[in-house]
Amino acid sequence: MSRASSYVRPLVRTLHPYVPGEQPKIKDLVKLNTNENPYPPAPGVLEAVREAVDGRLRLYPNPAADALREALAKLHRCRPENIIIGNGSDEVLALATRAFVEPIGLGKNADAETIQYFSPSYSLYPVLADTQGTRKNSVRLNADFTIPDAKVLRAAGWNTKAALTFVTTPNAPGGRGYAVEQLRTLAAAQRGVVVLDEAYVDFAKENAMTLALELPNVLVARTFSKAYSLCFQRIGYFVGSPELIEALHKIRDSYNVNGLGQIAALATLKHLSYYRANFKRIIQSRQTVSQALEDLGFQVLPSETNFILTEPPQFPAEEWLRKLREHKILVRWFKDPAVSKFLRITIGSEEEMARLMEAVKAILASQSAGKRKK
Amino acid sequence: MSRASSYVRPLVRTLHPYVPGEQPKIKDLVKLNTNENPYPPAPGVLEAVREAVDGRLRLYPNPAADALREALAKLHRCRPENIIIGNGSDEVLALATRAFVEPIGLGKNADAETIQYFSPSYSLYPVLADTQGTRKNSVRLNADFTIPDAKVLRAAGWNTKAALTFVTTPNAPGGRGYAVEQLRTLAAAQRGVVVLDEAYVDFAKENAMTLALELPNVLVARTFSKAYSLCFQRIGYFVGSPELIEALHKIRDSYNVNGLGQIAALATLKHLSYYRANFKRIIQSRQTVSQALEDLGFQVLPSETNFILTEPPQFPAEEWLRKLREHKILVRWFKDPAVSKFLRITIGSEEEMARLMEAVKAILASQSAGKRKK
Repeated sequence: MSRASSYVRPLVRTLHPYVPGEQPKIKDLVKLNTNENPYPPAPGVLEAVREAVDGRLRLYPNPAADALREALAKLHRCRPENIIIGNGSDEVLALATRAFVEPIGLGKNADAETIQYFSPSYSLYPVLADTQGTRKNSVRLNADFTIPDAKVLRAAGWNTKAALTFVTTPNAPGGRGYAVEQLRTLAAAQRGVVVLDEAYVDFAKENAMTLALELPNVLVARTFSKAYSLCFQRIGYFVGSPELIEALHKIRDSYNVNGLGQIAALATLKHLSYYRANFKRIIQSRQTVSQALEDLGFQVLPSETNFILTEPPQFPAEEWLRKLREHKILVRWFKDPAVSKFLRITIGSEEEMARLMEAVKAILASQSAGKRKK
Repeated sequence: MSRASSYVRPLVRTLHPYVPGEQPKIKDLVKLNTNENPYPPAPGVLEAVREAVDGRLRLYPNPAADALREALAKLHRCRPENIIIGNGSDEVLALATRAFVEPIGLGKNADAETIQYFSPSYSLYPVLADTQGTRKNSVRLNADFTIPDAKVLRAAGWNTKAALTFVTTPNAPGGRGYAVEQLRTLAAAQRGVVVLDEAYVDFAKENAMTLALELPNVLVARTFSKAYSLCFQRIGYFVGSPELIEALHKIRDSYNVNGLGQIAALATLKHLSYYRANFKRIIQSRQTVSQALEDLGFQVLPSETNFILTEPPQFPAEEWLRKLREHKILVRWFKDPAVSKFLRITIGSEEEMARLMEAVKAILASQSAGKRKK
């Protein structure tokens, strides 16, 4: 160990950071790997941001994003005290681990030191647990990515006393949506905090926001990144009971949300009809592409998100990743054995989906040609 | 304790969050309370940001702010591996506490659990220590806010084995600058990490950046907020050894720096002459105002920052705060007994300083009038 690394906490030395999807700069690349929205923000949003780019950049932004919290409170029929804005929803997820879960060695029992989540789900959760130095309880979803019933869950080691439970709903990378009733039963049985991570919920049949205002232990996470085309500006939030929200406010950085991001998100809420039309278009495209891929021998899981998880035919998913890249189509593949046979494909614009289908057909055709030669 | 608050870690329940300076919206207010730069960003910076406000907001920003790190590496004659960008320098300061300091109960000894800093200095440090659950070692500066010599420091309980030491240089709220040689001696004697927080260094005679590249345990913190008029967009950074920087990268959020902030900071580096002219103007104004206040009976501490700390005459500083506010002049006053007899006044534009001096004279005049009546 070098002298320099001895300055670093042993816990941190052992960490493997979360690896975000690639953001390569390749000309004409069709980027279907990080679930970004193919459509730009509403023109009125871009205008509001442009108009704010002036001398005021020299000033600190509102430290608690008050105007945005007030507008969101109206939207969700709650109070600003029910809301905390983060530098992307990743920040509020990380804050939750630090506010609610003891590092190993500091809890009054193992439950107080436990973060629980389903597998497969958002691969950030174990990274957050490792960073906070907590125990991890990863429980397998059913093979079709539905949530097991209570008896099966218990048998699989589900812990109703875990300090913090993360549920991605609709699920990622599976894509499946969960019924509010099922989530209510699950959350009500938990003694600790339950985060319902609804990053993709605008593409789903129902949402569980009501649970954040109904159950004292539920936080619902939302983001402006995907559905609202604002990845660049990092705005996410939690809705939940004032007691949970207050704890998170206490430990966040004082000015955690950049000013132009606050302005962009606030303007977004004034143009919801633009985005709702956009959701419909993406959902329609998701159905069309799913069907087209199935016709070519892909197995496509049912999705309530802006991506699909699909098992490709003929050769392994990792090889498909490489071959699609040769056609300048970038999709996502995960090493995790629970999902390594799948590709995750973001639903892009109609043009991007056409390019995807062309590439898929070309790959399949060259494969058949190769076989015929043998 | 309500059921809801039982979800929160005992540590977090006891926290008192850092209270940032007010950001009130009062017409014609002269805002001299949070050390913002009175001048806007360079026109070319505003233009670069405006031009970037388009469909790309839908995409994730570069996760490690690579282009900005490369430009900063050129500026500081180091490599991008020596740099981490944060969501404001507050974020990198917080990351340092989590990467280098064990919470109480988890360290192999008390030193490993200790964050050390001078008093008075940036009031965020004890908040960060409490949030991470560490020990705090606060050591008094000399009465004139110089750093005590080694012998006095030792007697005052200075710990050369503290896991992390924060030094604000030039100091805040004192305003005094420290010589690189003195900082080198101080840092070289530490067994743990030393953060030299140079938020105000562009207004000082010298900077200690060289130590970040010379000593394996030194991180220098810089920010685009104050000197570079970018508070709104939250860009700060550390320079230091790759080993320390890598540890911080591991525990930050994946996309911690918003995209328009990256673009603004990068453009800033192309317009440094604009900012250097601006620094000169502020330094000149600092000298003029200091002299003018001294002529009216204020004691003004020597400053190498864009603010002054001053002991006002006739009545207590807290009363001055209130009276100045009646004149729509907002300055900063700290309850901390170490500085409660002072006001901290940001150096604003020449016009703002003229309004400050008018208000000061009016307050003093009405005080004399009151005395004469008695």
